[in-house]
Amino acid sequence: MRMYDIIEKKRDGKNLTKEEIRFFINGYTNGDIPDYQTSALLMAVFFQDMTAAERAELTSAMVESGDQIDLSAISGLKVDKHSTGGVGDTTTLILAPLVASAGVPVAKMSGRGLGHTGGTIDKLEAVPGFHVEISSDEFINLVNQNKVAVVGQTGNLTPADKKLYSLRDVTATVNSIPLIASSIMSKKIASGSDAIVLDVKTGAGAFMKELDDARELAQAMVSIGNRVGRNTMAVISDMSQPLGYAVGNALEVREAIDTLQGNGPDDLTELCLELGSQMVVLANKANTLDEARKQLTDNLNTGKAIEQFKLFLESQGGDSRVIDQPDLLPQASHTFELPAEKSGTISKISADDIGNSAMMLGAGRATKESAIDLSVGLVLHKKIGDYVNHGESLLTIHANTSTIEDVKETLYQSIVISDEPVKNPPLIYENITK
Amino acid sequence: MRMYDIIEKKRDGKNLTKEEIRFFINGYTNGDIPDYQTSALLMAVFFQDMTAAERAELTSAMVESGDQIDLSAISGLKVDKHSTGGVGDTTTLILAPLVASAGVPVAKMSGRGLGHTGGTIDKLEAVPGFHVEISSDEFINLVNQNKVAVVGQTGNLTPADKKLYSLRDVTATVNSIPLIASSIMSKKIASGSDAIVLDVKTGAGAFMKELDDARELAQAMVSIGNRVGRNTMAVISDMSQPLGYAVGNALEVREAIDTLQGNGPDDLTELCLELGSQMVVLANKANTLDEARKQLTDNLNTGKAIEQFKLFLESQGGDSRVIDQPDLLPQASHTFELPAEKSGTISKISADDIGNSAMMLGAGRATKESAIDLSVGLVLHKKIGDYVNHGESLLTIHANTSTIEDVKETLYQSIVISDEPVKNPPLIYENITK
Repeated sequence: MRMYDIIEKKRDGKNLTKEEIRFFINGYTNGDIPDYQTSALLMAVFFQDMTAAERAELTSAMVESGDQIDLSAISGLKVDKHSTGGVGDTTTLILAPLVASAGVPVAKMSGRGLGHTGGTIDKLEAVPGFHVEISSDEFINLVNQNKVAVVGQTGNLTPADKKLYSLRDVTATVNSIPLIASSIMSKKIASGSDAIVLDVKTGAGAFMKELDDARELAQAMVSIGNRVGRNTMAVISDMSQPLGYAVGNALEVREAIDTLQGNGPDDLTELCLELGSQMVVLANKANTLDEARKQLTDNLNTGKAIEQFKLFLESQGGDSRVIDQPDLLPQASHTFELPAEKSGTISKISADDIGNSAMMLGAGRATKESAIDLSVGLVLHKKIGDYVNHGESLLTIHANTSTIEDVKETLYQSIVISDEPVKNPPLIYENITK
Repeated sequence: MRMYDIIEKKRDGKNLTKEEIRFFINGYTNGDIPDYQTSALLMAVFFQDMTAAERAELTSAMVESGDQIDLSAISGLKVDKHSTGGVGDTTTLILAPLVASAGVPVAKMSGRGLGHTGGTIDKLEAVPGFHVEISSDEFINLVNQNKVAVVGQTGNLTPADKKLYSLRDVTATVNSIPLIASSIMSKKIASGSDAIVLDVKTGAGAFMKELDDARELAQAMVSIGNRVGRNTMAVISDMSQPLGYAVGNALEVREAIDTLQGNGPDDLTELCLELGSQMVVLANKANTLDEARKQLTDNLNTGKAIEQFKLFLESQGGDSRVIDQPDLLPQASHTFELPAEKSGTISKISADDIGNSAMMLGAGRATKESAIDLSVGLVLHKKIGDYVNHGESLLTIHANTSTIEDVKETLYQSIVISDEPVKNPPLIYENITK
């Protein structure tokens, strides 16, 4: 078998066999197949696409290119959630304890990641004492005992995907549905959960700006998951504006605590209930979505959810007093309000620009080596469709510097106030189950 | 400027600017741009094509990536000829002295090349004493004196093309009209001639099997040539069977001598007159194609052409007695006939298989290091449309070994004898001038 023939075959629009896909992924991972042949194949895939069968084979080959997490020692069906990314997405912080409170085992491997704010682990580390340096055995025991634990990514998961992603990033082959879908799904599948709920974002602040593209990606990922034997579904949700009000690490932990106490922002709460219900049903902990949603809503209102969060924080060394005394979380030295320059209805809040502002304040990482400031960020007071009076604050900026004119300027540009009434965009567009 | 953006732009079907094409070619030539980005761009070009302006810019950038031959010291318009390759293509050996005999200066740089038989230099070296190791000054003086000289390729011509071709060869991006056309034309243009006549082959033995593809390639090359200021035209000619009768180095020299004496095969003679007439007109040595053709035909019949060949051989050390005593050329130790296995009309002579047989006998080079046997090859006695009797010889094999069963088997498979009458394919399909 020769890589040349595989490139030519895909270039000419033919379907690759399982053996050809394995040959490519194994050869590329071990260095036998060079970058220059691989990038030619990736560009051919960009133009010729892959069938559902090819996508599933590509994903499986990437999964098998490295270690796979064995969660079989955890009793019950393990359900993982993945979001395609966005701004102010605090859902993981809420969903982990929330679905655990409904009996779903949550064995979360997470990273630190690059982006506008830190990853889930960075956010949790805003809680004094919380740590993820636990052994595999300890991790599994914690999930069996408490239904929820978070650990940093270990092992050599999907090395083929890592290598391919780096190459795609410099060869303009990132934006290809089969390549995006197989990349995301290979990581999820290697992480060992039995079922997967995907939160695919669409809108100006998402990777997939258009609903049609988001739907295509969601269908691709759901198809791969189900083909490789993992029960998978996707929710397509809005990211035309940030989700919830808080953007920043400690600020999002605060918002997660509010939400787990039943006092969260409507959109964030609703999305967590939707995703959580799907997870509960996939884990066989409820027979219907309605039943699952009722249980989760009860747990938010009765304190069961926040109790689960408390247990979770304590079991990994975190100071659970932050729940009642959120001022124990890292706090920025300065706060600034952003007064509206006119009265009217908010018609646009650019999620990208809000994210970039948080980044400018130091909330995120541009490179793996960047330091992250857990205390900074911003808290919106208005969302699209809300009325604001001239001079009323649009949002509060939390900064560790007193000179934030550039951030303010970016923020002013990111928020548009209209004289006309504006309808709030829908939060959830549709669910994809096949 | 970033290579990433150039790949993305072409990927999305947009046209690259002159500056972007220069940035790419210069960066790739000097090593700043890696193979893996280049192969992604090449694959994007495969799918998105290039405009006439982009193709001309790409060609110019490749020309300027290395040395360019300066032929300005040669008086008159220099016209070069290029064939896209085929089997038994002896035209260069004939055309060089033939058009020189009509006053056209022929300053031929040639290579040894890989293929079924050697390159033009290998063939000429079958003439005892002939050599191409002459200085640039000597080369130019010879052309000014005798109108014709051949020299081995020197200097660092089109390094960008060399590097790109190696990469295309392993990334399934050879078969792209803009890339083929710019590769061929960059080499021709860097070689310094004022005008170019292209012989684009089509048919089973050619790179372009289909006439439509050959026409597209011819149009692409003619457009590039004219856009960069070189008067260029193309003849599309048949390569469904070998041209002429001889395939092999010394055997083709013999056939060239016959042709220059007016006794050559009809197809080879006709193609040389067609290409030669075009060259004479482009060199302003005749006003019309008819006038040019008459002159060339006269030169074949009156001995002027063979006299020119004699002068040419002698001026580069060759033993011109080979003209009257062709047995002075290298001769193989054995000859074998290939008797027809039935009576009928020849309906197919696979040029590829004939070429491979010559290669098996040792007439060509598989790698740059391969030794070449100038004496071996084969001489057809029949062409498509000819009638053959059972037992009559189809061709003579010239070999330096007595065991040639595998060659015979290949040859028998390459020639099909039909019970029905068969029409000879046309020799020349069309001329492309814009």
